[in-house]
Amino acid sequence: MSALDTLITGGEVLLPDGLHRVDLGLSDGKVAGVYAPGTAPDAAETIDAGGKTVLPGIVDIHFHVRAPAYPERGTVLSETRAAAAGGVTTLFEMPISKPCCSTPEELARRRDHFAENAVIDFALYAAPGDLTEASRDKMMDLGNIAWKIFTTPSPAGRADEFEGLAFPDEADQMRALQLLSDTGLPIVVHAESAALLAHYEEKAKALDPADAMTHGASRPAICESVAVAKLLAMNITAQAKLHIAHVTSAETVEVLRAFAGTSDFTAETCPQYLFATEEDVAKAGIYAKVNPPIRTKADQDALWQAIEDGVINYVTTDHAPFAKAEKQAAEGDFPGAPPGVPGIEFILPAMLDAVSQGRLSLKRAHDLICANGARRYGLYPHKGALLPGSAADVTIIDLAAQTTFSPETMHTHAREVAHLFYGRCLQGRVVQTILAGTTVFQDGSVTGTQGGGRFVTPGLGK
Amino acid sequence: MSALDTLITGGEVLLPDGLHRVDLGLSDGKVAGVYAPGTAPDAAETIDAGGKTVLPGIVDIHFHVRAPAYPERGTVLSETRAAAAGGVTTLFEMPISKPCCSTPEELARRRDHFAENAVIDFALYAAPGDLTEASRDKMMDLGNIAWKIFTTPSPAGRADEFEGLAFPDEADQMRALQLLSDTGLPIVVHAESAALLAHYEEKAKALDPADAMTHGASRPAICESVAVAKLLAMNITAQAKLHIAHVTSAETVEVLRAFAGTSDFTAETCPQYLFATEEDVAKAGIYAKVNPPIRTKADQDALWQAIEDGVINYVTTDHAPFAKAEKQAAEGDFPGAPPGVPGIEFILPAMLDAVSQGRLSLKRAHDLICANGARRYGLYPHKGALLPGSAADVTIIDLAAQTTFSPETMHTHAREVAHLFYGRCLQGRVVQTILAGTTVFQDGSVTGTQGGGRFVTPGLGK
Amino acid sequence: MSALDTLITGGEVLLPDGLHRVDLGLSDGKVAGVYAPGTAPDAAETIDAGGKTVLPGIVDIHFHVRAPAYPERGTVLSETRAAAAGGVTTLFEMPISKPCCSTPEELARRRDHFAENAVIDFALYAAPGDLTEASRDKMMDLGNIAWKIFTTPSPAGRADEFEGLAFPDEADQMRALQLLSDTGLPIVVHAESAALLAHYEEKAKALDPADAMTHGASRPAICESVAVAKLLAMNITAQAKLHIAHVTSAETVEVLRAFAGTSDFTAETCPQYLFATEEDVAKAGIYAKVNPPIRTKADQDALWQAIEDGVINYVTTDHAPFAKAEKQAAEGDFPGAPPGVPGIEFILPAMLDAVSQGRLSLKRAHDLICANGARRYGLYPHKGALLPGSAADVTIIDLAAQTTFSPETMHTHAREVAHLFYGRCLQGRVVQTILAGTTVFQDGSVTGTQGGGRFVTPGLGK
Amino acid sequence: MSALDTLITGGEVLLPDGLHRVDLGLSDGKVAGVYAPGTAPDAAETIDAGGKTVLPGIVDIHFHVRAPAYPERGTVLSETRAAAAGGVTTLFEMPISKPCCSTPEELARRRDHFAENAVIDFALYAAPGDLTEASRDKMMDLGNIAWKIFTTPSPAGRADEFEGLAFPDEADQMRALQLLSDTGLPIVVHAESAALLAHYEEKAKALDPADAMTHGASRPAICESVAVAKLLAMNITAQAKLHIAHVTSAETVEVLRAFAGTSDFTAETCPQYLFATEEDVAKAGIYAKVNPPIRTKADQDALWQAIEDGVINYVTTDHAPFAKAEKQAAEGDFPGAPPGVPGIEFILPAMLDAVSQGRLSLKRAHDLICANGARRYGLYPHKGALLPGSAADVTIIDLAAQTTFSPETMHTHAREVAHLFYGRCLQGRVVQTILAGTTVFQDGSVTGTQGGGRFVTPGLGK
Ligand SMILES: [Zn+2]
Ligand SMILES: [Zn+2]
Ligand SMILES: [Zn+2]
Ligand SMILES: [Zn+2]
Ligand SMILES: [Zn+2]
Ligand SMILES: [Zn+2]
Ligand SMILES: [Zn+2]
Ligand SMILES: [Zn+2]
Repeated sequence: MSALDTLITGGEVLLPDGLHRVDLGLSDGKVAGVYAPGTAPDAAETIDAGGKTVLPGIVDIHFHVRAPAYPERGTVLSETRAAAAGGVTTLFEMPISKPCCSTPEELARRRDHFAENAVIDFALYAAPGDLTEASRDKMMDLGNIAWKIFTTPSPAGRADEFEGLAFPDEADQMRALQLLSDTGLPIVVHAESAALLAHYEEKAKALDPADAMTHGASRPAICESVAVAKLLAMNITAQAKLHIAHVTSAETVEVLRAFAGTSDFTAETCPQYLFATEEDVAKAGIYAKVNPPIRTKADQDALWQAIEDGVINYVTTDHAPFAKAEKQAAEGDFPGAPPGVPGIEFILPAMLDAVSQGRLSLKRAHDLICANGARRYGLYPHKGALLPGSAADVTIIDLAAQTTFSPETMHTHAREVAHLFYGRCLQGRVVQTILAGTTVFQDGSVTGTQGGGRFVTPGLGK
Repeated sequence: MSALDTLITGGEVLLPDGLHRVDLGLSDGKVAGVYAPGTAPDAAETIDAGGKTVLPGIVDIHFHVRAPAYPERGTVLSETRAAAAGGVTTLFEMPISKPCCSTPEELARRRDHFAENAVIDFALYAAPGDLTEASRDKMMDLGNIAWKIFTTPSPAGRADEFEGLAFPDEADQMRALQLLSDTGLPIVVHAESAALLAHYEEKAKALDPADAMTHGASRPAICESVAVAKLLAMNITAQAKLHIAHVTSAETVEVLRAFAGTSDFTAETCPQYLFATEEDVAKAGIYAKVNPPIRTKADQDALWQAIEDGVINYVTTDHAPFAKAEKQAAEGDFPGAPPGVPGIEFILPAMLDAVSQGRLSLKRAHDLICANGARRYGLYPHKGALLPGSAADVTIIDLAAQTTFSPETMHTHAREVAHLFYGRCLQGRVVQTILAGTTVFQDGSVTGTQGGGRFVTPGLGK
Repeated sequence: MSALDTLITGGEVLLPDGLHRVDLGLSDGKVAGVYAPGTAPDAAETIDAGGKTVLPGIVDIHFHVRAPAYPERGTVLSETRAAAAGGVTTLFEMPISKPCCSTPEELARRRDHFAENAVIDFALYAAPGDLTEASRDKMMDLGNIAWKIFTTPSPAGRADEFEGLAFPDEADQMRALQLLSDTGLPIVVHAESAALLAHYEEKAKALDPADAMTHGASRPAICESVAVAKLLAMNITAQAKLHIAHVTSAETVEVLRAFAGTSDFTAETCPQYLFATEEDVAKAGIYAKVNPPIRTKADQDALWQAIEDGVINYVTTDHAPFAKAEKQAAEGDFPGAPPGVPGIEFILPAMLDAVSQGRLSLKRAHDLICANGARRYGLYPHKGALLPGSAADVTIIDLAAQTTFSPETMHTHAREVAHLFYGRCLQGRVVQTILAGTTVFQDGSVTGTQGGGRFVTPGLGK
Repeated sequence: MSALDTLITGGEVLLPDGLHRVDLGLSDGKVAGVYAPGTAPDAAETIDAGGKTVLPGIVDIHFHVRAPAYPERGTVLSETRAAAAGGVTTLFEMPISKPCCSTPEELARRRDHFAENAVIDFALYAAPGDLTEASRDKMMDLGNIAWKIFTTPSPAGRADEFEGLAFPDEADQMRALQLLSDTGLPIVVHAESAALLAHYEEKAKALDPADAMTHGASRPAICESVAVAKLLAMNITAQAKLHIAHVTSAETVEVLRAFAGTSDFTAETCPQYLFATEEDVAKAGIYAKVNPPIRTKADQDALWQAIEDGVINYVTTDHAPFAKAEKQAAEGDFPGAPPGVPGIEFILPAMLDAVSQGRLSLKRAHDLICANGARRYGLYPHKGALLPGSAADVTIIDLAAQTTFSPETMHTHAREVAHLFYGRCLQGRVVQTILAGTTVFQDGSVTGTQGGGRFVTPGLGK
């Protein structure tokens, strides 16, 4: 047989049952083989991973660029370059954009835009739009990876971005669950109660807008837990494949735990909730404003407990870049500041740091940020595993090295507004990222090419 | 010591731990003593309860007269007479009326109206009205037994009846829970999702209004289960003393079960759900229209299972009389027909019949329709028990006799629209009802006097 | 009606659902009535229980006099007098004696001996003896209250005391369970593994006999937990009404918890395990030697937790008096000392003290030492309750007074070897004990008469 | 790199997370690589597994040859040849032999005997012998795979075979658990209560020895469940790595379920219990006598349920060959017949048949008979997986073909006494068995060589 394109030797490779000292051969963009040391065929290129750990490339199932709108916040190019730097080889872009990705036409347009610009692979969520079977089916034909809805209304002045995505009316939420349950695709929900939000936001107007506590007070945990309870109750009837986005609070964990076994639902949290609390928000100011808010230490503990218990099985970035000018303009104005943090370079080192502290195993950490998502969305073992035939998406990490965060070390366009991460020193570092056999990041430099990423659709794992 | 007013001899008496062959002495409106047979003091009057069973008078915690409005539907006099005939000695009137009982003024007015007319004891729910502490505290001072809210909006054209009672907005529900949780009184909720109701009612307009299935289709179980899930999620935060009214469906039972242990909540169902299904509705037509609707055999089974498991611990009537003309005018028009059935004479015989069929013990049946309510609302052991010092509220039943239902045998003003019950023959019969030592019903005749009932307030059980 | 023999006024009376401020009338040895204050008939005698609490007389289901053998250790007279002083009105004597109570003849003999001497009521356990249906049925005819077996062999030199009682062979244990399960009577088992005991006793010979730890080492918890596991496994097949005597250890609690729901079994512990640890044994020396041994604080905590969880629902004395000379002769010789402590005067004050410390409610405490036993053995509500028709067995306590223990204050013949209790000052005091309407103890003096107690048999509660 | 020794192409390969269409390369007795189809290096030999399924070679953790004793029953050669034919590449030999494998000397002798004769790999259990640390440590040094004890005494006349293996005394069982828990090796227990067995065997003497029911009556389920309960209770204290051999009954499953979580224990059952009931015993007569006995359909259902629930996670053969003459001599004499069936060729087809019937997945079936054992005993992933570096132990099966059983088709020396299996037609067939890269069975013929198997010790999986 002909030689391999690439051979990764000397590393500990994360196979489905744990780490193994094997070599990994890549050819034609796929894993060609997994070899006992010294038994691999010849290779055109050899990567010495001695002392390193070799992971299936990370799959982030909750990501926002919002392209082609708002290039000043970040572009497909800039943010997929950052993803590559973060060890991420596949991202799932959420439908918020201008216009919203809630029609077949827009889905096709975004697919093309991403295909032209993405440095890594990408999948696209669709919003269910007009809730018709016709539109739904056309989007399915185009290959949306899953569905996304909000239970909150469009933010003021952003109706076009949330058109067909925001369903504050319960009946519409139920209609969406029922319309989409037949597709077999996950339905991801940003779950906060519209009515409760309106109430608490109104109340928060009496508070100091510069006080970090104000943001939490304007969206307390009850907004989230009630919306989640509603959805899970609906899903007892709808029996859709439901996924609760970015869980932040002990109350919501309690609700998730209560509903265990009543339907096929899953839930995620994000590094900003696992590795920060309202004290960090007080320090970072509006740069740490996210929705739902970062909460207390007790909430954080509840989230880790939920991970330990298997109540939460996914960790995603909810990466959301903003322009420096936008954030700066809103300094001292929590209600007015745009919500979101750019965590795509933070997620993997953060989880590795937790591994090094003994909080969880490397396999469990990887399941949370990669393999579980790949399985749930039908990409496994093409994505999420390093078995022969899998995509040659590889992230090589050095557990002995550290990662620090500053505008200088980060790659996202939003690196100047990533205050939540600045100054952190985490144990574990991304050394090299390989997409379909091609190195897209190495030793601090992004090497991937614009348009090198491909569109990922649900059938991939079969 | 002076002689007793009344001695009830020869019966099996339901004491807190079960049935005992003892005699029961009544004096000055209270239980004077419980005696070994043959050891009681002399009595002015002796009631021979040989072969009979002697129960603490039934306390129905969910009742509607709506007086002083709508006398054509039934009056305090007519409906408390019916209650006496049904073995009920205390009823808790819900706040729906014209105007709604959601202000101190109206509460005082209704208290007086009931006091002048009621044949049995009564307590009054208040609606929280304007959600102010001032109004809340004044109503507490007047002695409302508990609070009631709806999660649905006022029905069209009935805004005055639901003013301060209907809180379709989640934020208002949460505000109500938080405002009222300090009072220590139960908060009873008619829980159906306003948004889901609106949706399904709209859809049901396409259906045949004369078809009994149409009503169920216009308020499917999901409306109830979602509203309950919301409230229980809120109550994780509010930690109020929450009570879910008239549970009807398997879905809601599943939600109740899921939330077990997360807060101090309770739930009730009603005889119309335990002893009828949509097949009975098909027969009785709009006379069996109630909200939420009577559902399927599977739902009924789930309710009985919930009673067996202790997920549901209360059975109430939700008695709601209507004028013959009203119901007749709506024949064949399920959407337009007024909802409600007059079950106050049905509940006790129905539960006794279930006892005779071995479904549950007499003690458990009595707990469900009396003692548990008395305990939860702070009336026990003054109400709900027959111990020295308890009110002399006694219901004497004959488990060997039967009860049948027809306009001729019933006492409620709504006896001509009680089609749901006609023709049923139940094992167990109310022989005599005693209120505070005075017989208010005996051998088919109501003997209680208008205004003989007293106002019951929360402190009573202390 | 004629006047009462006795009226107890002014007290808080423990009725089946809790404490009530009622008066209690006694006539002809039974409870005649329970009265609202001031409504009782005249009485020949009135007891002012103002400020006191009135309980159903305590039923101790695990007691040893061993009479008529060993009068030097205590007699039926001396020990039932002590029981009266402890507020106990009924005791269940275990079959150990010389000869063992394992034949109809001996059962009849003991019944007569107790009847002639007992100051309080008594029931008799029988050992199943030769495991024949004939013998079993004759003992049933005589009215044994239940069965008792040991899983340990007869102690050296005491074969006659354990003849037909000790069944170290598992097959015999199984035969006993199966033979006796048909009788419907509880089978109480002293459960320690014979083989493990032999082993650890042998090992303990190497230890200092004067060291209190030696006794525990000679009968570690594993002896108990293994024997209990065996019995519970057998009972999955035998489905007898099994009762595990004197549970002492966390390990056994874990075993009981594991088997929950697998058969109809119950378990008891004793005050010596709930209120003492090996540190107390170190102080009291061989006077605190009991079998199974008093163990660690962790074991004690596990027992209280088991009571809180309902894993253990009975607290009994396992009262076992010894002669002063016997105990003194064995000072410093744990292996040789006779095992047992005389706790009949300790149990009620000890539990009251726990009530006063908020560990459990008075009702729960009384259930543990009285009502639950009365129910399980078929005596309720004749014993264990104060309802009309119940035996007039009453224990009046003063929760505001204290009890101290010394040879001077105690009544048991073994009061000079009760070192485990000396010096303790407990909150709660027995003021008066009434048996079948007759005061048998009052204000520190036993007033009951020899032979005043009656033989109690299983049918009593019907 | 140099060419492979062997390439297995075209098959579905069972990797740790399920089946994958990959090729498998073998070199130097190990898995060299796992390849995407068409990417493997050249190979000296190519096996076309098109349409076939490729499994890690089966590891049977409970096997008896009893060699070098009793060659007339089967030899290491004959029985490992049968194992090869059954797709088994590693067996764990139990210590019963003449003399018993309970000394370092005998362990060494058996190791050598097996090494000279075995066609497949083998590990050896040791019995703890004299329960000394010295002997234990010497056996550990020699590399026993784990420990085995019986809770039953040596059968009559077989004391030498069970010397140091049979510990009917509970204290010795506890001593063994404690002595061996430090070794970190599993302790496998044949658990039947000696005392109960003695009792029921005695009783069964009254029954017809030719009746198949007699054997079950002589060793009822209670013997097993009680012994298991004892061990699990001991293990709460000992916290050893306990493994319960050959579970047969619903009662024992109930005991295992009760003890879940109390210590680190596991349990196995065998094909004779999963695929046969007492009706099959009635047909096969004494040829189906095994200890513990094959029981009822209800027991069988309970075992499958336990597998579904994860209460039982291992299926082993308990293969035990006997000479035709021995079995024939005992026809019609259940008590006298030697117990055991030769199931090594049955286990894999039987489990495959269950897979084809949808009872469980192929992965779960393989876990039960191979991977779970390999993990528990520390051999994984050297054994139990097909990953680079794993042993090249491969079993190729054809799920579309069938297996039938007769003396003509079987390979065990006991093929003439395998009546329990005759006539069965199972879906699934062993096509080829490869040990360390060498084919030891193919297309019905054993090709492995005497002495080709190696001694397997616990460190292997590291
Ligand atoms: Zn979101
Ligand atoms: Zn998002
Ligand atoms: Zn209602
Ligand atoms: Zn109502
Ligand atoms: Zn004992
Ligand atoms: Zn005892
Ligand atoms: Zn065995
Ligand atoms: Zn075996």
